[in-house]
Amino acid sequence: MRLRTVFTDYGDSRAQMRIDGEWYTSAAFDVATLLMRPDWRTTSGVWVAGRIPQRVAPVVVAPAKIVCCGHNYRAHIEEMGHPTPQFPALFAKFADTLTAWDSDIALPGPAESVMLDWEAELAVVVGAELRGADRDTARAGIAGYTVANDFSVRTWQRRTPQWLQGKAFDATTPLGPELVTSEEIDPADGLRITCRVNGVEEQVGSTDDLVFDAPELLSYISAFTTLRPGDVVLTGTPGGVGSAHKPPRYLRGGDVVETEIEGIGVLRNRITVPSTH
Amino acid sequence: MRLRTVFTDYGDSRAQMRIDGEWYTSAAFDVATLLMRPDWRTTSGVWVAGRIPQRVAPVVVAPAKIVCCGHNYRAHIEEMGHPTPQFPALFAKFADTLTAWDSDIALPGPAESVMLDWEAELAVVVGAELRGADRDTARAGIAGYTVANDFSVRTWQRRTPQWLQGKAFDATTPLGPELVTSEEIDPADGLRITCRVNGVEEQVGSTDDLVFDAPELLSYISAFTTLRPGDVVLTGTPGGVGSAHKPPRYLRGGDVVETEIEGIGVLRNRITVPSTH
Repeated sequence: MRLRTVFTDYGDSRAQMRIDGEWYTSAAFDVATLLMRPDWRTTSGVWVAGRIPQRVAPVVVAPAKIVCCGHNYRAHIEEMGHPTPQFPALFAKFADTLTAWDSDIALPGPAESVMLDWEAELAVVVGAELRGADRDTARAGIAGYTVANDFSVRTWQRRTPQWLQGKAFDATTPLGPELVTSEEIDPADGLRITCRVNGVEEQVGSTDDLVFDAPELLSYISAFTTLRPGDVVLTGTPGGVGSAHKPPRYLRGGDVVETEIEGIGVLRNRITVPSTH
Repeated sequence: MRLRTVFTDYGDSRAQMRIDGEWYTSAAFDVATLLMRPDWRTTSGVWVAGRIPQRVAPVVVAPAKIVCCGHNYRAHIEEMGHPTPQFPALFAKFADTLTAWDSDIALPGPAESVMLDWEAELAVVVGAELRGADRDTARAGIAGYTVANDFSVRTWQRRTPQWLQGKAFDATTPLGPELVTSEEIDPADGLRITCRVNGVEEQVGSTDDLVFDAPELLSYISAFTTLRPGDVVLTGTPGGVGSAHKPPRYLRGGDVVETEIEGIGVLRNRITVPSTH
């Protein structure tokens, strides 16, 4: 089953479900609102077939919690010469950071000084309330998976030991285009995750290479904070980011970044230079 | 002017304003909702006098953004032998972290192993939309100030370089009891901030000792993410935390922590040992 959120022409948004190749529109505001219904996997809600004027939105529009994990792909950790972490390094993002799968990403300053980098990531969307959940409960509480790119402003990220400020620029984390539900796909089977910049493959990894996989991350996080339907967990990025190039290679205006996870979908984002005011 | 939020007997909450020593109740869900009205400083909204069954809630109940600054009191930075930071070290909290001024704080495990510590903090509540705000605009966008304690689970905080997980346990950040509006009080005048544990003064500082003061922090944050009415910024803690004791001293069940800022108010929180299930 595939779910997505679309913006309507009324300044509103709606959750959609794909059935037999066609998108049906629900009365729910977004996928998160839909997931709050215990019977969301059924189609017993009000679903309307047919095209509506629309643009695909982030899978969830305003999650209360976005929790991100750094340093989580074994191959990347090894290439950097780091030891395998004992605990996941977690930071938060605000909902304002999210943007649609095809949104332009605005450089927040001159390209050379902000050092905007790419980070392809598997995103997990929570489908149940999880509090102190063990691994099996956490696994059962996963609604599904989608694609994210945790575009990072490296100069700001490195200003202090806390990464938040480099990871929380508004509208810099595309999320989507669709959620694939957990009974259809399992990242533990090894899904290919890639990031291409102007058509050149820069990152490649497999989702079975995570030190802390999705159920483990949700279980760990739920030990300190309650996860609820629509919350999002980003699982970290594989090797091949721009800052690991020698010399480093950062994004410039006009660059096109494609982030893909096998069986889930592709994000396509153009980097733009904001006009000065 | 003083504002606060109270829980009602209907599982709901309401903003209140103190006028001539009496609390008047508004139709707004909480102080954040009230602050979204441009005319919130007037009493032209619907305000009802008289007692209602109530318990004081966190000043804002569900802010979209809580941004926290570490290492911000000069005296504390000097006593730790650190250089003055060039940029504020920022991390986020989730709204679920907030709790009322008099709430019990539950130890999330055996006291010796979790190492729960106190951190008295001046909290700033945003009163206008701020995006790329300069210092003067940021200052004008401050609704007011309240008191917080950023109780920190040091073992979790130190597991990785990112502090989030030690700072984001649900219901561990009391915020309140009241907001004092910015025309009544200015932390730059030097308000005494203290934390007492079982009556013993452990932390003492002055709010004019901040490296990055409230207008500066809001301006800096608004360069990467939009701040809106009801968002909260915690400004860091002065010297005297438990982990700086030799040997370190952490909180135990039954301890009572009082956090006070001159002219604003006092938080009073008892540390409890949760019953095992």
